[in-house]
Amino acid sequence: MKTTVKSTNKKIQNTTKRTLKISPKKIKRSVQQLPSTFSFTITHQESHTNARTGIISTPHGSINTPAFIPVATQATIKAITPQQLNEINFDAILCNTYHLYLRPGPDIINNLGKLQKFMAWHKPVFTDSGGFQVFSLNDGLCKIDEEGVTFTSHIDQSKHRFTPEISMQIQKKLGADLIFAFDQCLDITADYNTTKASLTRTHAWAQRSLSTFNKLNKDKSQALYGIIQGGRFKELREESAKFISNLNFDAIGIGSIFGDPKEESKQLVEHALKFVPKEKTKHLLGIGAVEDLFTYVELGIDTFDCVLPTRLARVGYIFLRPESGGTLQNRYRCRITNEKFKQDPTPLDPRCTCYVCKTFTKAYIRHLFKANELLFYTLTSYHNLAFFQRVMEEIRESIEKDTFLQLKKRWVK
Amino acid sequence: MKTTVKSTNKKIQNTTKRTLKISPKKIKRSVQQLPSTFSFTITHQESHTNARTGIISTPHGSINTPAFIPVATQATIKAITPQQLNEINFDAILCNTYHLYLRPGPDIINNLGKLQKFMAWHKPVFTDSGGFQVFSLNDGLCKIDEEGVTFTSHIDQSKHRFTPEISMQIQKKLGADLIFAFDQCLDITADYNTTKASLTRTHAWAQRSLSTFNKLNKDKSQALYGIIQGGRFKELREESAKFISNLNFDAIGIGSIFGDPKEESKQLVEHALKFVPKEKTKHLLGIGAVEDLFTYVELGIDTFDCVLPTRLARVGYIFLRPESGGTLQNRYRCRITNEKFKQDPTPLDPRCTCYVCKTFTKAYIRHLFKANELLFYTLTSYHNLAFFQRVMEEIRESIEKDTFLQLKKRWVK
Repeated sequence: MKTTVKSTNKKIQNTTKRTLKISPKKIKRSVQQLPSTFSFTITHQESHTNARTGIISTPHGSINTPAFIPVATQATIKAITPQQLNEINFDAILCNTYHLYLRPGPDIINNLGKLQKFMAWHKPVFTDSGGFQVFSLNDGLCKIDEEGVTFTSHIDQSKHRFTPEISMQIQKKLGADLIFAFDQCLDITADYNTTKASLTRTHAWAQRSLSTFNKLNKDKSQALYGIIQGGRFKELREESAKFISNLNFDAIGIGSIFGDPKEESKQLVEHALKFVPKEKTKHLLGIGAVEDLFTYVELGIDTFDCVLPTRLARVGYIFLRPESGGTLQNRYRCRITNEKFKQDPTPLDPRCTCYVCKTFTKAYIRHLFKANELLFYTLTSYHNLAFFQRVMEEIRESIEKDTFLQLKKRWVK
Repeated sequence: MKTTVKSTNKKIQNTTKRTLKISPKKIKRSVQQLPSTFSFTITHQESHTNARTGIISTPHGSINTPAFIPVATQATIKAITPQQLNEINFDAILCNTYHLYLRPGPDIINNLGKLQKFMAWHKPVFTDSGGFQVFSLNDGLCKIDEEGVTFTSHIDQSKHRFTPEISMQIQKKLGADLIFAFDQCLDITADYNTTKASLTRTHAWAQRSLSTFNKLNKDKSQALYGIIQGGRFKELREESAKFISNLNFDAIGIGSIFGDPKEESKQLVEHALKFVPKEKTKHLLGIGAVEDLFTYVELGIDTFDCVLPTRLARVGYIFLRPESGGTLQNRYRCRITNEKFKQDPTPLDPRCTCYVCKTFTKAYIRHLFKANELLFYTLTSYHNLAFFQRVMEEIRESIEKDTFLQLKKRWVK
């Protein structure tokens, strides 16, 4: 049985490599059923941009790229059931190692069958390394040394320590399919010398992450992303891209790109990507503004994760397609809490085809907000996630047809 | 077209009356498709108890009775989508007139196509009269006169007035299928003279409610419940039962039964029901403890509404079937927030077949609680509602088989 599965899987992977223009949807249907180790296949490369479609294959199924990966910080997409997430048709989610390490703890999740079983999400899962949260939630409260970081829990002020080895061990227990090397994240304002010193440390941590990962991952159930850092300095980004690409990571992440200033961020990523092998899949950490998705897909980024759609949903921001008034200027969104929607009988976005837009009016959803009703969070989060999923579907379709730039022009103007 | 529908509908109603033992499920499938005015048909009467199964037919479909009606105070079952409520298989919900009158207001709901369209619940809806909330949320802040009640909004302290006529007009605009006469609700400790005076008022208001209703309801789209009051005094309950039954209400509600003390409550309802025609459908307002469902179904009550399953869910109480440890002593519930469930890999109730119990573990749901995650409210509310729905399904099945008392014995001991 096992042999059959393996050989079938191999056959399909070979097939996908041979027939680059086959519809990713068709491939996905065949691949998703099969247990397999990590692979990344480019299914179509646009000739006049770096945008490409691809398939990341994991033991829990495949991800059609370019993909937006919603964030399930504490092993739940806030206010959304896994059933609803499946309805929206997401291929994967990303959980935060820092939060899950502190609560409920990696041993509990491991004992309950790892993240997928714990949260009843049976498709691919990413975990980040915990680094970003240690540094961002512990501003001034964490102590860095060459070995790792000592930090204070934001929950109960207890003391904890992360090292590359510990992060790998935690991520092994959490059991995500796609995990990240432990790195140091810097504030965007960090100067050259601070960034340079931090980069040296991050590179040493990358090597130690990889070495521990190789020991823990004998069963090949996980794949490891190395992370390119280097702050706002082109030469450091270049140095990092070369260093990380030279190590034997399965895939490449790019960290500490905050999306602003826009042009500078773009140039940093564009420059770094020159030194990363085309065939590796690339994840841009924490990015998710609509215009950024277009910018970085064009440069060859395959996956993005961001809390934006759900976090903004909970305070009343609704994403809008260009046909419904979404523009770069209004950041593709409106506030549903606005008085003017009090009696509005239209859906959140009349051109959206999601369950929420097919079912409810703006007036009803605004009422839920005014009445402090929990259903508000579910409905707005659902719509915003469906908006992101559809943008990515359209991006994938446009790349397959070599019309990505036309789509981009319709969205970003 | 209209004629065809009417005659088909009449035919089906006649059929249901002739063949009393036909499975309610089969009848429901035929009836539910058709627009119709209100009717109540007893499909099976147990010979040795007053328990009966029946079908309440409304323009938005039918309700298999005995039924538990979940409460959607502000036009939403808290944390649950209408899709999920359909999955659980509820036939109807109850909304609160007081809350919806204050926010978003009856005109907005009317303009948006009435309650069903507003909240995307296309099955039967009840609204209460607003009386209970005026009196219970405005303790000492409402002024009663013979004409009606002046009260202060709990939202913004603005002044408002309800009379029987106003309540009927509001409920017309809200557009529920099944509505209630405006009554005065008393504290359970009210003495005889206070209760007697209040009952006289409630009876005058019942007549005015009915008179206004008859003017507003020319299209027969709504049905009106008269409400029996009378506090804790048997003779006043009897007087009220006779008075309300003599008026031309479509159905009968029983108000101000708080379920405690248990024996006294039961005797009051039992006594009142002696004076209510068997053929009328009867609703017991605000009752929903598991043992009470059995007590009052046995006496001939057809429908119940209560916030219990969802309100308790939000603070972590999980309902348990007897096979899973639910007893009269533990009130058929446990607290999922308990430390002992930290690593528990079993479902909330191993004998429950709902989506939540088929999908998630106690450990995961407890984690959501500890982590203040919104999904907690959805999952616990879903399970508790499914628990109530299944109890009622089992009650209906047992009545059809004349085995209600055996079922009751398995549950209440």
